[in-house]
Amino acid sequence: MRDVMVIGAGMTKFGELWGKSIRNIFVEAAEGAIRDAGVDHIDSLYVGAMSSGLFVCQEHLGAVMADYLGVTPVPATHVESACSSGGASFRQAFLEVASGASDIVLAGGVEKMTDGADVTEALATAADQEYEVYQGVTFPGLYAMIARAHMEEFKTTREQLAAVAVKNHENGTKNPNAQFRRRVTAEQVMQSTMVADPLRLLDCSPVSDGAAAVILASRDVARALGRDRIRVKASAQASDTIALHSRKSLTTLGAVVKAAEKAYSLAGLKPSAIDFVEVHDCFTIAEIVVSEDLGFFEKGRGGEAAEQGLTAIGSDHIPINTSGGLKSKGHPVGATGIAQIIEVYEQLTGRAGERQVAKARFGMAQNMGGSGASCVIHILEAL
Amino acid sequence: MRDVMVIGAGMTKFGELWGKSIRNIFVEAAEGAIRDAGVDHIDSLYVGAMSSGLFVCQEHLGAVMADYLGVTPVPATHVESACSSGGASFRQAFLEVASGASDIVLAGGVEKMTDGADVTEALATAADQEYEVYQGVTFPGLYAMIARAHMEEFKTTREQLAAVAVKNHENGTKNPNAQFRRRVTAEQVMQSTMVADPLRLLDCSPVSDGAAAVILASRDVARALGRDRIRVKASAQASDTIALHSRKSLTTLGAVVKAAEKAYSLAGLKPSAIDFVEVHDCFTIAEIVVSEDLGFFEKGRGGEAAEQGLTAIGSDHIPINTSGGLKSKGHPVGATGIAQIIEVYEQLTGRAGERQVAKARFGMAQNMGGSGASCVIHILEAL
Repeated sequence: MRDVMVIGAGMTKFGELWGKSIRNIFVEAAEGAIRDAGVDHIDSLYVGAMSSGLFVCQEHLGAVMADYLGVTPVPATHVESACSSGGASFRQAFLEVASGASDIVLAGGVEKMTDGADVTEALATAADQEYEVYQGVTFPGLYAMIARAHMEEFKTTREQLAAVAVKNHENGTKNPNAQFRRRVTAEQVMQSTMVADPLRLLDCSPVSDGAAAVILASRDVARALGRDRIRVKASAQASDTIALHSRKSLTTLGAVVKAAEKAYSLAGLKPSAIDFVEVHDCFTIAEIVVSEDLGFFEKGRGGEAAEQGLTAIGSDHIPINTSGGLKSKGHPVGATGIAQIIEVYEQLTGRAGERQVAKARFGMAQNMGGSGASCVIHILEAL
Repeated sequence: MRDVMVIGAGMTKFGELWGKSIRNIFVEAAEGAIRDAGVDHIDSLYVGAMSSGLFVCQEHLGAVMADYLGVTPVPATHVESACSSGGASFRQAFLEVASGASDIVLAGGVEKMTDGADVTEALATAADQEYEVYQGVTFPGLYAMIARAHMEEFKTTREQLAAVAVKNHENGTKNPNAQFRRRVTAEQVMQSTMVADPLRLLDCSPVSDGAAAVILASRDVARALGRDRIRVKASAQASDTIALHSRKSLTTLGAVVKAAEKAYSLAGLKPSAIDFVEVHDCFTIAEIVVSEDLGFFEKGRGGEAAEQGLTAIGSDHIPINTSGGLKSKGHPVGATGIAQIIEVYEQLTGRAGERQVAKARFGMAQNMGGSGASCVIHILEAL
């Protein structure tokens, strides 16, 4: 396999972008990435999106975006893996460059969620339609069950869940593209509207519009452009049962564990070598569980770690979600996985401004779908 | 890039499969392919589907299928490119094996269209939602415009359109998996219900359920299994404007022309070297236009060629759609591209029974989405 580099990034602000259509925002992000990379063409493109069919009645997103970006006849493909659609889009672009089939590939992600569709119903199609959704379960309910089990098994507290939200909102104040650039207190989180006990409104990532894109290139092309600094050190993906009830444990996400094992093995690294990580905090409990399943904390100790500040910017343990995470930055589903890669890229290139972590060499992005039935992990390295 | 071989295939019968769910039929096809290939595991899988969200309220299809096939935690990804989702799924599997990331990959496709969704509305999401669909255009209307333009420009006749349907239904009688295994006469086609002038009911491919899957492997693995006979000689993909009205010509499909150029160039072959082809005959006019754009006939002569029998099984010119094509075999959208590959594979391995073409070395599969905004072409070679 050839070495693959990330050479540029672009994204829209995340939020309620009512004045722009799905194609407008994708093109805005893609043009930003192309400009940033300094390339005069792309060989192909991928679009990660969860369900543009249900959200905005538009499938065939690859062709739509190639057309509006003005790059036809390049190959253009839409990739879906629920909330890990962005990570999957990046992985397919990585494989295409690694194979030698293409030298410069755009990996993008987009979702337009505020245009009138029933968002809860559309998102629920990421769960098991026949055995979960039909019985009335939605995602806050599924993650609430994970939270209850984690509290029961490991004495994780309501305060620890809140600590994740407080930290991510703090980080989000430093991110110009974040949907919510305001601090919240633990009290505010714990007094916010109950959504699915024990998860409250401020434990949940928001409904968002947004797009993000990066440019991947072969090492030779990156070198010629003078942009061969950030390498994709590992790309790994794994699956798990679609329904939460089919799993042996509610408090370990098997796809995260398996994808992490593979990623560490491909990179020849241990968790301790990772300098910072973007994780899929669709709900506060998700960040806690994932921080354990990635090997950064012992199983059951993720809540405590968040409360003690071990995951904050400046911690020498492991800063988590320096971007603000899904919680504060926003969660336009298909764009999220690419936005995570962008945060890792910005940190490794020293462009993260007020959020900058010191002397980082290895950054990780962990993106997952549904209640963890799919997980895509990438490790990027600053050379 | 590594050589990639096709080593096994499986599919369901196409038709109205009311007794089975989308996961049942995908698993049936995938198990068939795994059994046929004689492998004891797969490294990853792809699912091509156009809009399982709109058709059956289930996204996250990669994870769903990995789960029900019993292969978790392998990576599993859903790929969408409207009616060329199957071809795109095969291409992503090809790139993954070619890259060296995996040795054995399943490429599948599926669609369950008869479970109650508004099929015309769901299919229309493959066109330009904002500038075509919102104005009332549907796919029969778009292809009818292509047909009218072709008739006007090249004197293509109503009889020539009918000849395509007659030939494909004849071929379909010889395919046990075809939805319609009955002959039709030119008179029946020309007297069938008008759908969008000049296209009548028997000019249109049907609404279908079905699934199809193939196994791709590296050459080393294929050799060890004694199944290194069929090689992927070329994989090519191209895009065009999403809206038909944005194109310079209605009678040439730019994405087909561009993907074909690339495929021939990668294979080092001219059209005359191709022994038979499966083309995307969603409507009779599509087969005529595509047969020209692939270089088998001069532009404007495709209708005449069909009428003269140059595309029938047994013709020494170019047998087209020996499987019965979308017209007679059925068109479960996401499964179609994989079913085309399967027909090429069956022909090249001499397993096509009554449909067998003589002494074939190179077979082509041409799959497209929407009114041709995306096209994926593969050439397979019998070694």
